[in-house]
Amino acid sequence: MREVFELKDKDVMGRIGRLRTAHGVIETPAILPVVRPGADASRLRKFGAQIIITNAYLIYRSPELRNQARDLGVHRLLGWDGALMTDSGSYQLYEYRGIEVENSEIVRFQQEIGSDIGVPLDIPSSIYISHSRARAELDRTLNRLREARELIDDERDGMILAGTIQGSIYPDLREYAAREASRIGFDLYPIGGVVPLMEQYRYGDLVRVILHSKINLEPSAPIHLFGAGHPMVFALAVALGCDLFDSAAYALYASDGRYLSPSGTYFIEKMEYLPCSCPVCSERSPEDLRSDKDLLADHNLYTSFEEIRRIKEAIREKRLWELVQMRVRSHPSLLEGLKSAVSFADLIERFDPISKTSFFYSGPESSRRPEVIRYSNRLDRFELGGTVLITTERVLKQLNIEHDHLFLLKPPFGPYPVELSETYPVGPSEIPKTPDHEAMVVAGSNVRRLIELNPDVRFIIACEQEWEGYIGDIEKEQVEVVWV
Amino acid sequence: MREVFELKDKDVMGRIGRLRTAHGVIETPAILPVVRPGADASRLRKFGAQIIITNAYLIYRSPELRNQARDLGVHRLLGWDGALMTDSGSYQLYEYRGIEVENSEIVRFQQEIGSDIGVPLDIPSSIYISHSRARAELDRTLNRLREARELIDDERDGMILAGTIQGSIYPDLREYAAREASRIGFDLYPIGGVVPLMEQYRYGDLVRVILHSKINLEPSAPIHLFGAGHPMVFALAVALGCDLFDSAAYALYASDGRYLSPSGTYFIEKMEYLPCSCPVCSERSPEDLRSDKDLLADHNLYTSFEEIRRIKEAIREKRLWELVQMRVRSHPSLLEGLKSAVSFADLIERFDPISKTSFFYSGPESSRRPEVIRYSNRLDRFELGGTVLITTERVLKQLNIEHDHLFLLKPPFGPYPVELSETYPVGPSEIPKTPDHEAMVVAGSNVRRLIELNPDVRFIIACEQEWEGYIGDIEKEQVEVVWV
Repeated sequence: MREVFELKDKDVMGRIGRLRTAHGVIETPAILPVVRPGADASRLRKFGAQIIITNAYLIYRSPELRNQARDLGVHRLLGWDGALMTDSGSYQLYEYRGIEVENSEIVRFQQEIGSDIGVPLDIPSSIYISHSRARAELDRTLNRLREARELIDDERDGMILAGTIQGSIYPDLREYAAREASRIGFDLYPIGGVVPLMEQYRYGDLVRVILHSKINLEPSAPIHLFGAGHPMVFALAVALGCDLFDSAAYALYASDGRYLSPSGTYFIEKMEYLPCSCPVCSERSPEDLRSDKDLLADHNLYTSFEEIRRIKEAIREKRLWELVQMRVRSHPSLLEGLKSAVSFADLIERFDPISKTSFFYSGPESSRRPEVIRYSNRLDRFELGGTVLITTERVLKQLNIEHDHLFLLKPPFGPYPVELSETYPVGPSEIPKTPDHEAMVVAGSNVRRLIELNPDVRFIIACEQEWEGYIGDIEKEQVEVVWV
Repeated sequence: MREVFELKDKDVMGRIGRLRTAHGVIETPAILPVVRPGADASRLRKFGAQIIITNAYLIYRSPELRNQARDLGVHRLLGWDGALMTDSGSYQLYEYRGIEVENSEIVRFQQEIGSDIGVPLDIPSSIYISHSRARAELDRTLNRLREARELIDDERDGMILAGTIQGSIYPDLREYAAREASRIGFDLYPIGGVVPLMEQYRYGDLVRVILHSKINLEPSAPIHLFGAGHPMVFALAVALGCDLFDSAAYALYASDGRYLSPSGTYFIEKMEYLPCSCPVCSERSPEDLRSDKDLLADHNLYTSFEEIRRIKEAIREKRLWELVQMRVRSHPSLLEGLKSAVSFADLIERFDPISKTSFFYSGPESSRRPEVIRYSNRLDRFELGGTVLITTERVLKQLNIEHDHLFLLKPPFGPYPVELSETYPVGPSEIPKTPDHEAMVVAGSNVRRLIELNPDVRFIIACEQEWEGYIGDIEKEQVEVVWV
């Protein structure tokens, strides 16, 4: 397999990458605006698009477009000289059931018209079907992936063949799909069948689908989250390892009068102020956008690309988690998505860079950030002897207790040696003065853990009464407790 | 007193208002860009500025500017035909200690040069001084306010005289200052002396200073938060009742290479991507902004005005609290500010509109939102008899228990009658599937409260085991409990 994807930077499980296609290198995370066959794509450059996506099935179905595409190539058909991905019609398969093309036919067609990234005709399983039916559909998808893989040699044919991951909402099927697709071998993996989850704000399920797929794919392979076009979801999806998004949303939402923003959707009908400074919004009023849906679609694209730049900058500055913490406040279901993600914190921890510059505590979900898990896992690394004093900065100023080692308490990390006061993550972490319950729970449990790890060391715990409920009764000879 | 301020819309304690000045009506919340005497202000229109602020003391101190201002008026001096506020030099008093002008002199001067809003020479007390010193300084400030009030008749003189609230960080002094200033009587109240709190990210203190001042002022009077220019803080400050902000920040931050955003500050030196689509950022690269600090200042203004529009739209849609919940995730100290604000929830509840369309739960601080406080306070309004079943939607489907009234459980509200399923706030509230501890605590306590309020009613509590720790043991004849 060639190296078509190169990582430039990373944070959490997200990355800035460079994807090499037959029509140039594109930087990820990237949005692929969906272009209808027949439309003029050249205007998409101004939004920052480096790659677009169109539907090969819709071209194939129309004898006229089909011939034009075969004659001119799909790039000239759309007036686009950059990278271009084609979809195979599997979404039509999902929406309308039954389409009139064979997998091998549409795969070959994509290659013939010069698509840079082509997709087999996978079966987008519904999120409502039984496990056994989902498994049967997945097997058909995998057969189609194998068939397509036989037909296309990426290098020879100048097309990256994508291996779509299906499996409905079943973790074991997503995992199986990812392992099998990896075995078949692709340079790019779309995660499919997730649009209904997003439409229904089932972000907890979406996160599980992404992660169960992701962890069974080559960490270095680019991932496309098929059908994700709302800027609200980009930051979380990138943080979980997604690199490509296709957006029909900008146009679909606009046709429905919906004004996108990274913090949710507005209805243009109701708006009096435009919370955006893009070239559309800085020159126009809500009234203008109400009367011209193309303007609204343009705004939707500007704001989507702006969010991608924000995400890239966050990755560079190692603040992607901070951005996600903010973004998930757009809707409680997104917050549930992040809660679902932190239940995979052990996994995320393996990807997340060891050293960053900041750790902002934003709520209970921050108590399970990879940095906290990592810190807890490493409590056994301290070499302690004599007497260890565990206290808070405030109590330290009041009392004078002899000790050999000094640990300060900071939720959610718990005890940390004063020598690490400047060291990431504990030292530079920013925590609200009033910690929440979960932060105290984790901190308290780390106190107990540190003591258990050092049975031969004498501990003195001297801190405020409010810690008592979290540290609990420690009935051990080695421990002396002073509540202040 | 004339009615110079008219409310158009409101949410939480924030409002959209119209402030009448001698140079036109301005809509609030508004930012007043700070203009140096001698600079050209006319270019500020393009950002959306309706009102600007300049320093009357700096004009007064320069014989040349002083004469020009007296001859031409301050509007023509700055090339600005809109509303214009002048500051008195009290910031210089704070920064450099001792300035060479008397209160009466600078107040009269502001009126002479045609300022639309003038400010007495108050004493901006440090946040580090003792209570007694702060009190002494406050008394001097109040004397100056009285003196200025004697000199200026707003209507006759065509100038709104502002009554600045001081008092350092002492709640009782802020309250006293607000009551005394109200007694003297002004049409606009700046809250002063807060810049150091913002510089040090002491947002908990800032919130207390604002609220202790605010609650002792006429609810209908416009409030100016003096020196607040970072867009990160606007949403929270507006939600607490602030209407005007002056921004020197756009230029000061730019001169220091800092790129403002409503979610915090970037350093232009380090940036590779611009997370903004304003007329500056959509045409330029970070490199361009590095080499031209004026461009950076322009971006800072665009993003600040964009945030004000976002806040206004949020007020209109009754989603200001949702915006604040998001914004405070910009920094844990801002989250602490919101935590500090919810400790005044009873107060905020009196201002907050009764009916909205959405309630998004964003973390423990949402458990103390005004809507939750209000709901808890009204648990005594249900007329109950016979048997009341308190259960969850899931358990309801499993069990068949006879009852006269059905209450469902939803954190953080707790029990609500099924008839209110569509009624704000409980019905439409969006809560993450996995509630946090604080939400469960409030919900559990409301279960107990409902039972206590209805000693003659029989209750059956049937719900999941996880509720047990929050509802607790209720050893009453009237209550039967089924853990599922």
